Amino acid sequence: MPSVTPKILPSAASATNPALMIGDLLEAGVRMACDNQIVYRDQSRHSYERFRERVHQLAHTLTSQGVQAGDVVAVLDWDSHRYLECFFAIPMIGAVLHTVNVRLAPEQILYTMDHAEDVFVIVHEEFVPLLDPLADKLPQVRGYLLCQETPQTVDTTLPLVGEFEALLSQQPTHYDFPTFDENAVATLFYTTGTTGNPKGVFFTHRQLVLHTLNESSAFQAPGFELLNRDKVYMPITPMFHVHAWGVPYTATLMGATQVYPGRYEPEMLVKLLVSEKVDFSHCVPTLLNMVVSAEAIVSKQVDLSGWKVLVGGSALTQSLASKAWALGIDTRSAYGMSETCPLLTADILPKDIGEADFEAQLPWRCKAGLPIPLVKLQVVDANGEPLPNDGKSVGEVRVQAPWLTQAYYKEEKRSAELWRNGWLHTGDVGSLDERGFLTISDRIKDVIKTGGEWLSSLELESYISQCPGIAEVAVIGVTDEKWGERPAALAVPVDLNNPPTTETVQAFLEQFVAQGKLNRWGIPSMIRFVDEIPKTSVGKLDKKRIRTEI
Amino acid sequence: MPSVTPKILPSAASATNPALMIGDLLEAGVRMACDNQIVYRDQSRHSYERFRERVHQLAHTLTSQGVQAGDVVAVLDWDSHRYLECFFAIPMIGAVLHTVNVRLAPEQILYTMDHAEDVFVIVHEEFVPLLDPLADKLPQVRGYLLCQETPQTVDTTLPLVGEFEALLSQQPTHYDFPTFDENAVATLFYTTGTTGNPKGVFFTHRQLVLHTLNESSAFQAPGFELLNRDKVYMPITPMFHVHAWGVPYTATLMGATQVYPGRYEPEMLVKLLVSEKVDFSHCVPTLLNMVVSAEAIVSKQVDLSGWKVLVGGSALTQSLASKAWALGIDTRSAYGMSETCPLLTADILPKDIGEADFEAQLPWRCKAGLPIPLVKLQVVDANGEPLPNDGKSVGEVRVQAPWLTQAYYKEEKRSAELWRNGWLHTGDVGSLDERGFLTISDRIKDVIKTGGEWLSSLELESYISQCPGIAEVAVIGVTDEKWGERPAALAVPVDLNNPPTTETVQAFLEQFVAQGKLNRWGIPSMIRFVDEIPKTSVGKLDKKRIRTEI
Repeated sequence: MPSVTPKILPSAASATNPALMIGDLLEAGVRMACDNQIVYRDQSRHSYERFRERVHQLAHTLTSQGVQAGDVVAVLDWDSHRYLECFFAIPMIGAVLHTVNVRLAPEQILYTMDHAEDVFVIVHEEFVPLLDPLADKLPQVRGYLLCQETPQTVDTTLPLVGEFEALLSQQPTHYDFPTFDENAVATLFYTTGTTGNPKGVFFTHRQLVLHTLNESSAFQAPGFELLNRDKVYMPITPMFHVHAWGVPYTATLMGATQVYPGRYEPEMLVKLLVSEKVDFSHCVPTLLNMVVSAEAIVSKQVDLSGWKVLVGGSALTQSLASKAWALGIDTRSAYGMSETCPLLTADILPKDIGEADFEAQLPWRCKAGLPIPLVKLQVVDANGEPLPNDGKSVGEVRVQAPWLTQAYYKEEKRSAELWRNGWLHTGDVGSLDERGFLTISDRIKDVIKTGGEWLSSLELESYISQCPGIAEVAVIGVTDEKWGERPAALAVPVDLNNPPTTETVQAFLEQFVAQGKLNRWGIPSMIRFVDEIPKTSVGKLDKKRIRTEI
Repeated sequence: MPSVTPKILPSAASATNPALMIGDLLEAGVRMACDNQIVYRDQSRHSYERFRERVHQLAHTLTSQGVQAGDVVAVLDWDSHRYLECFFAIPMIGAVLHTVNVRLAPEQILYTMDHAEDVFVIVHEEFVPLLDPLADKLPQVRGYLLCQETPQTVDTTLPLVGEFEALLSQQPTHYDFPTFDENAVATLFYTTGTTGNPKGVFFTHRQLVLHTLNESSAFQAPGFELLNRDKVYMPITPMFHVHAWGVPYTATLMGATQVYPGRYEPEMLVKLLVSEKVDFSHCVPTLLNMVVSAEAIVSKQVDLSGWKVLVGGSALTQSLASKAWALGIDTRSAYGMSETCPLLTADILPKDIGEADFEAQLPWRCKAGLPIPLVKLQVVDANGEPLPNDGKSVGEVRVQAPWLTQAYYKEEKRSAELWRNGWLHTGDVGSLDERGFLTISDRIKDVIKTGGEWLSSLELESYISQCPGIAEVAVIGVTDEKWGERPAALAVPVDLNNPPTTETVQAFLEQFVAQGKLNRWGIPSMIRFVDEIPKTSVGKLDKKRIRTEI
């Protein structure tokens, strides 16, 4: 690429060219929101004006406790209005929001809080027992702000500075927020891999504003139409997990009604979905599967028709999308990861597909989708050469976009592995079709190398999941002398007392061999029926543990 | 505002954090567009893929003619697919696109081309006679590229380098575009004021990308819903005028069908509106008034129902909005100016208003609207103090946003006047209501100071326009010994042979006095009936010339 010298012109001495600041998203939302509200469980609701006031009060609360720009502030909470306020107040004072993954093991939580150099902690009362034994190993933490919802006395040795609501209520409702370099870090969180310690990823004000603007444009696009000002949004991906896919920022920009469900309890989730008339949520396939398998939903005692669900984290299978559709639940897919803020692609249905019937749409709904604006996405072979958009050529997915973590925090070697030749390597394997839609077939390390070819464990899971009597399935590769690797499956039967036989499943898979979709050696010789499949802390299939169980 | 030191973290050595480049808008559009097309009059149509190829071919054509990054390239064309290609190819090679206002007087065009330091010119054959006598006063221009649509030989002394289509067709369809500083200037054009030479405003890649992303989000918002991938767009504000409000960039980002009408000829415009099923256009009120007054439209021989029109440049009056509505034409307002890229506010109807009937919506449709995301807008008194959002307090409108011209090109003094205390001063007078909607009442210099109060000439125009028998009206202030100033009106009667009397109009205005909307001294004592009201080159009321005619 040639290097050029374009024209840069001087600005008037008193001209302003504002930096991209997260606070601007909130201001836009307050203007747009009209009477829309922020709802917390069945406990509280308030206007956007009050939301803004609380962000200002939280900023005062934090700075009066000595929190400064550049400090890292940890939050341990379920999804709440408070968490949403932290999404804004902490970065807006120039500090860094560390969204702690509360589902990790205590020693991992300790690792992340120490590694992040957290100096102040906002903690929901439920996580106090978790932090109590860790506190003396976190000497850099200067104070803990308690979020208390129950009247019980909290029995703890943590150096609490007070209670969230009590301290907020004492503060003025206007804070004079600074402006600063848009490349300042706004958020930091940790992602767990299959090996080694959790890795910290971080995002700047600029990155989050650009991610939000593009997510907003994509979410309103025809063929997607997930969210706008007049819709009701409730996350079912935790806010500590990649900013709940950035959607709380996007919903705020739009001024949409936002419902935060606290701890994910099935009864509360369903209650809120119905009572708040939630239009849009996002979650991993496992969670959607739980919902569409729940007795009350299947029997249609509870009507969720009209609910739109964006599925990510793992691929949406056709059988799950169909099951949801039968209940009036409209699913869409998207693709991204912790390192990418996360949104990279969205399955914005092309006009002709959007106008077709559900059966024709089904394969499209299960693709990862089109790269959203400003995302450059390539599928490359082992030499880094882009593969053709033919829907067949499979290679590693690599990306560039203005919202990718620029490193793993304080991990030079792993950062260099993530970023090679100016591209972020996702570690995912996929293909692009003629219309530019991405399909993710696997993690590079989960691809099964059998008979000299790559077999996608995800694709095989999708085929097996269509077999009558199978509720859920996970496929991994096991070493085989003759074939290199062979696929093996762990499956949960619909009826635990009456699982299908291995032979039934194998016979069922013959149709895909006949259709040319699967090689004969892709039929697993080993299928184990189990009550439950191991999952990671964010609800994905835990292939690391599955390997040990097969 | 306190100065703070936030956390800036190092990037991995091989990490990429891409600059915001106009080329990314085109790439996004090609991915989204499916079968949507770029249409030019009844002459040509092609896919987005071909649009991209042509942009690459144009880049080769320009660079093979010696055009380099940093050079300024002038375009003189009517709205065309070629112009759209120039919107991309010229900035994408790092050069600056100068969109020449072809409606200016020849000596003003000469002034702007000389001042901009244009080194290369793309010129439609119709403007060759205009440039012929100017060329020897533009010695820095190295070549002229002719856009020829007719078979006639073009008789000219201009040093033509060839014909647009002929040269393009010889070039490869892939250009390896550079990336560079997002603060590089992408576009430059001139705005004419009431005094002095035209002033140059300029916009960077970063500014145009941010403007486009925000315009895209706003245009898809409920209560506005002007444009998306599945709609058909045709501008009726020239592309040389503030990038046709930036909409060609936005339409491209979305992958929408775009129709370019060439020279604005009423027959061709109507033909395209109908044959291409145009969903959305934008124009000044004068042009919309021409359309809704045209015999074929009024008689409903031509059905324009379903057409959405965004009105800007001057305020949309209630009578014009009603007239349009009666024909099934759905109007919306927006506000901005050459210096602001232009979009600042958009009348995105609040949910309750959007659900109300047309009569209730009417006043809202005629407001300038809500500031779009990332725009900070204030209405301030003479001391620069923000006025309350009460719908009454009137003051000057000043703004900050990441897409405002940072100066007038090579005009230090006028730049300092535009930018004072870090705010761009619009020179417009308006008020904000309780819901944050801006209403522009006047230009500061057009406010009539009468009886110790400010009288809005725009408001008075709106009242007079509702009087039966009045087709169009312009109000200015004339010096008056007793009152300081008094309003005077120039009006075009519906029936030229039978104009209403001054007394009829005055009597009609009494109702607004009775309603407390107008002071008695706001009723003009002088009303002159004329065949036509003088307009500026972009179709706005030319109050400078009106003053000389009253």
